Amino acid sequence: MREPRQQDGRVTIHDVARAAGVSRQTVSNAVNNPERVRPDTLERVRSAIDDLGYHPSSSAQSLRNQRSGAIGLELHTLGSHNATTAPVLTELSIGAARHGCHVVPFGSASGTPMIEGYRAMWAGRLVDAFLVSETHHGDPRPPWLEERDIPFASFGRVWDDPTFTRWVDVDGAAGTRAAVEHCLAQGYRTIAFLGWPEGSVVGDDRQAGWAEACAAAGVSPGPVVRAEQDLDAAYASAVPLVASLSPGDAVVCASDVLALGVHQAAVRAGLEPGRDLGIVGFDGSETAAMHHITSAAQPYDAVAEEALLLVRSAMRGEDPPATGSLLRPTLRTDRSTSPTT
Amino acid sequence: MREPRQQDGRVTIHDVARAAGVSRQTVSNAVNNPERVRPDTLERVRSAIDDLGYHPSSSAQSLRNQRSGAIGLELHTLGSHNATTAPVLTELSIGAARHGCHVVPFGSASGTPMIEGYRAMWAGRLVDAFLVSETHHGDPRPPWLEERDIPFASFGRVWDDPTFTRWVDVDGAAGTRAAVEHCLAQGYRTIAFLGWPEGSVVGDDRQAGWAEACAAAGVSPGPVVRAEQDLDAAYASAVPLVASLSPGDAVVCASDVLALGVHQAAVRAGLEPGRDLGIVGFDGSETAAMHHITSAAQPYDAVAEEALLLVRSAMRGEDPPATGSLLRPTLRTDRSTSPTT
Repeated sequence: MREPRQQDGRVTIHDVARAAGVSRQTVSNAVNNPERVRPDTLERVRSAIDDLGYHPSSSAQSLRNQRSGAIGLELHTLGSHNATTAPVLTELSIGAARHGCHVVPFGSASGTPMIEGYRAMWAGRLVDAFLVSETHHGDPRPPWLEERDIPFASFGRVWDDPTFTRWVDVDGAAGTRAAVEHCLAQGYRTIAFLGWPEGSVVGDDRQAGWAEACAAAGVSPGPVVRAEQDLDAAYASAVPLVASLSPGDAVVCASDVLALGVHQAAVRAGLEPGRDLGIVGFDGSETAAMHHITSAAQPYDAVAEEALLLVRSAMRGEDPPATGSLLRPTLRTDRSTSPTT
Repeated sequence: MREPRQQDGRVTIHDVARAAGVSRQTVSNAVNNPERVRPDTLERVRSAIDDLGYHPSSSAQSLRNQRSGAIGLELHTLGSHNATTAPVLTELSIGAARHGCHVVPFGSASGTPMIEGYRAMWAGRLVDAFLVSETHHGDPRPPWLEERDIPFASFGRVWDDPTFTRWVDVDGAAGTRAAVEHCLAQGYRTIAFLGWPEGSVVGDDRQAGWAEACAAAGVSPGPVVRAEQDLDAAYASAVPLVASLSPGDAVVCASDVLALGVHQAAVRAGLEPGRDLGIVGFDGSETAAMHHITSAAQPYDAVAEEALLLVRSAMRGEDPPATGSLLRPTLRTDRSTSPTT
């Protein structure tokens, strides 16, 4: 341990304030409510804390303040989960410091039942609130949390409770509309759709955007083909689809994995993605970037920021917003929609 | 909020003990030291806590106990980072409950300097220890943490300090040795190597395992080609490599991304991975699984368990182990090394 500069024992908050050239209250804020302090001041105070070896009092109040912003986030080991949860978790962890809180991930090896992890984290007082992700019809978590007055917000609409508004979600239809408009602007003619099996709310939303944009542009929609969220399944569905299309057509897909299946089918058929066939995915994943596939990218940084605002507001007991937040994806263009590739 | 079953106000620890049929001390342990309680008892106590709406005292001591096992883990937004950090973080989050601790991820949008996030998390008393990952030569973090007596363990050897033994790492040479042995057993003849540019400790280790296994089997090592950790670069290096090989040869790669480059080059050359060319990657990523590429899989669950043991031991002030822990990858076989595909 570095020697504190004070000879007479404990470094105090006054020493830090003097060294950083700020008030005692500013030091206290820097420790307990960093979001209230200007970034340059915060950095100066933190450097002084570090240089002097200052440790804030470990009284109940200070511990309570410093650790009262713990937000639980469930993780599990399903493969497809990582593609969206890892970037959201990264952005949440980066954003949390600005909001004076921190994220505590938890999970169970089994994955089911989903309530168990929430129960254990709450009973052990390890978190003060939750952020729920991957909501679905019949999801037991929102009612369980509401019944116990546990503060939470959701990444994904709470489908069974339209009165719940503390959610942020990505506008799937807006993403596929932008994909179709981009394909038509690039000169592709018929725009087909490769989606998930019917009945998934997210998938149906993305298909609706494709159909709307085709109608709005006055072009006949191309064929619709479906596959599960799996590369082999996507490839199997894409082979006959690609064979049925003409050079200069395009395929808008409900996900990047589906788009990669189209990409593989095109390459194996001797077609060059972009030049011979337009391909657009959805999610903005590393997989799409690696294969130069244009994709409707989920705005993970904006999603994380909105989720943090919502959960912090819930923790303060404030009224929920009038409506949920639907954020537009950003189309990340790449070679797969460049006809001159 | 659910109505507590007691009419006379606050639910006490005695009520929980009675409902769960355990002693008061067991309830206290279930809340403060869950790792000391048998899983079935823990579940019974937690159910009682939940049913009764019991909340433990929020005194300083109890808060301190319940939140004193916070382990900081740095995340950042580099793409390749997610492939290994996301599964480790998931396994850590699942394992933490067994060890009576929890993981607090943090990060900064810039990514550099790497010390900043550690300083802020420690000064704000948000964590009690750190788990460092992606160590490298000249890494400023281990000396910074050691100088301050901050407990930490490392996923990855601490290259600049051979006396530091609180690390767990994956045995790269063992992974590529297993890859070569598997290829030879499957009947592939010449085994080439696609590695990263020379001088990376991890890459050189993986190459050494390939060379050792070829020598041990008495076969001449095939050509060595190099590329950066990027699909385009891997593909560009793989095209001439694949052209120089004969049907029935194989390529062992330093990573799954490099292996995917070989896979693409093979497909575009009209070769069927597995039948015409053996391909082995390293990491056991989703990418490899999706493309049915055999891969030396990092044992993320064992890595997380060992890392938790090491960091908990450091937090208790125990002596470090005599040596670090080098864990063997598991070869996950798939179509890319099946000659009958």
